[in-house]
Amino acid sequence: MCELLGMSANVPTDIRFSFTGLMQRGGRTGPHRDGWGIGFYEGRGCRLFHDPNASAESHVARLVQSYEIKSKIIISHIRKANRGRVCLENTHPFVRELWGYSWTFVHNGQLKGVKKLPLSFYRPIGTTDSEHAFCWMLDQIRERFGNVPRRAGALWDFIYQLASKLRERGSFNFLLSDSKHLYAHCSTNLSFITRRAPFGRARLIDAEVVIDFEKETTPKDIVTVIASRPLTHDEEWIKMKRGAFDVFIDGISMGE
Amino acid sequence: MCELLGMSANVPTDIRFSFTGLMQRGGRTGPHRDGWGIGFYEGRGCRLFHDPNASAESHVARLVQSYEIKSKIIISHIRKANRGRVCLENTHPFVRELWGYSWTFVHNGQLKGVKKLPLSFYRPIGTTDSEHAFCWMLDQIRERFGNVPRRAGALWDFIYQLASKLRERGSFNFLLSDSKHLYAHCSTNLSFITRRAPFGRARLIDAEVVIDFEKETTPKDIVTVIASRPLTHDEEWIKMKRGAFDVFIDGISMGE
Repeated sequence: MCELLGMSANVPTDIRFSFTGLMQRGGRTGPHRDGWGIGFYEGRGCRLFHDPNASAESHVARLVQSYEIKSKIIISHIRKANRGRVCLENTHPFVRELWGYSWTFVHNGQLKGVKKLPLSFYRPIGTTDSEHAFCWMLDQIRERFGNVPRRAGALWDFIYQLASKLRERGSFNFLLSDSKHLYAHCSTNLSFITRRAPFGRARLIDAEVVIDFEKETTPKDIVTVIASRPLTHDEEWIKMKRGAFDVFIDGISMGE
Repeated sequence: MCELLGMSANVPTDIRFSFTGLMQRGGRTGPHRDGWGIGFYEGRGCRLFHDPNASAESHVARLVQSYEIKSKIIISHIRKANRGRVCLENTHPFVRELWGYSWTFVHNGQLKGVKKLPLSFYRPIGTTDSEHAFCWMLDQIRERFGNVPRRAGALWDFIYQLASKLRERGSFNFLLSDSKHLYAHCSTNLSFITRRAPFGRARLIDAEVVIDFEKETTPKDIVTVIASRPLTHDEEWIKMKRGAFDVFIDGISMGE
């Protein structure tokens, strides 16, 4: 299994606090030793870092932790391999271009027989079930809509339908982004918290780190963090229901 | 204009020496201040670093310089923007998946009216002529060959044809890779050097750095470095002719 981390915010925001917590689970407080990756959107561009090494010991992870990259959408993953060997091309986030946008995807779970689903346009570079599922979803979206649909809700509904189909094959917790929206689907484990004024303090579960968000934010900031399991004490995370699907824009949940 | 750097080797090789030279041209010894990027292939995966900041002052560039990433194929670019604003999505290398391989592309030059060329499958995420040209080339390859052609030469010839067509629109120096081959096309400026035993010493033109390749290599190593302009004194770089096209595998030129 794996752990996911995502962020959606209305202003470019630093993820290092949450990332520090997650990285510990990659070999120190958790068993997810088989690589990690993170994507930071900047406008339509996406800055990706991948490493097939354990995050708790990763040189690149320390670089990311030491470097303030602010972003409105962030997507991250630490891996405990079950299908597909440990190598760079099997490391999430996976990325593909659709309609001139950079789509990224991270997945936690297993999907029985997903590789039997036929693909047309997109093909996996690695050998994971996850990348196959991602390619299949994008293929379906591409086939259903010739271009970015005028009504965003039509796309959201369709992604939810695809997620529901794949969920029948096992567990399918995922985060997906097209640089504007952050899509979250809970099959077994996914929780989120939306932070806004008045901001308080929080303490990481996985490391001895405390943050005072009051000092790091302005009163207008809205920041949602989504993770497989809550990352902090002292805060009330909302556990998503099984089968729940949500879309976040600028830190705000669009509702199921 | 911009500067390109590529490497093809028969063993995973450290590019830091050449990269250190190139980075100086991004704001110190050269005017290429508008971002830089580098891609390191590892198997079928590709590790990409992009930064819209000047490479000579880039935090990420220093990270890459300090970190020994060994690869058999590397592709890099420093940018002096002429078309398309300075931002992450306009920063080379551009990347797309085709046939389950990660294709990357860096370009130096200007192509008149290239955005009028119609696209079908691939669309640019940013606004550069370069990314449009890359998408068009991949579209054409995809249309011409349903899958990886049995005879590699047929693909090479076709890429050369595409390059020749685009060259009519201006200057089109590029490096392209599919994780197995490194394709190089010279429209105005591109030089390369193939290093093999007996290895000697070399001195960077753009920084006070000397390397003794004898100490860094084994007698079986073959390493080709390609750059817009030679990066070292004390070595004989081969300047490619205008219109020349070459394919490198494991450090060895396949000839025009």
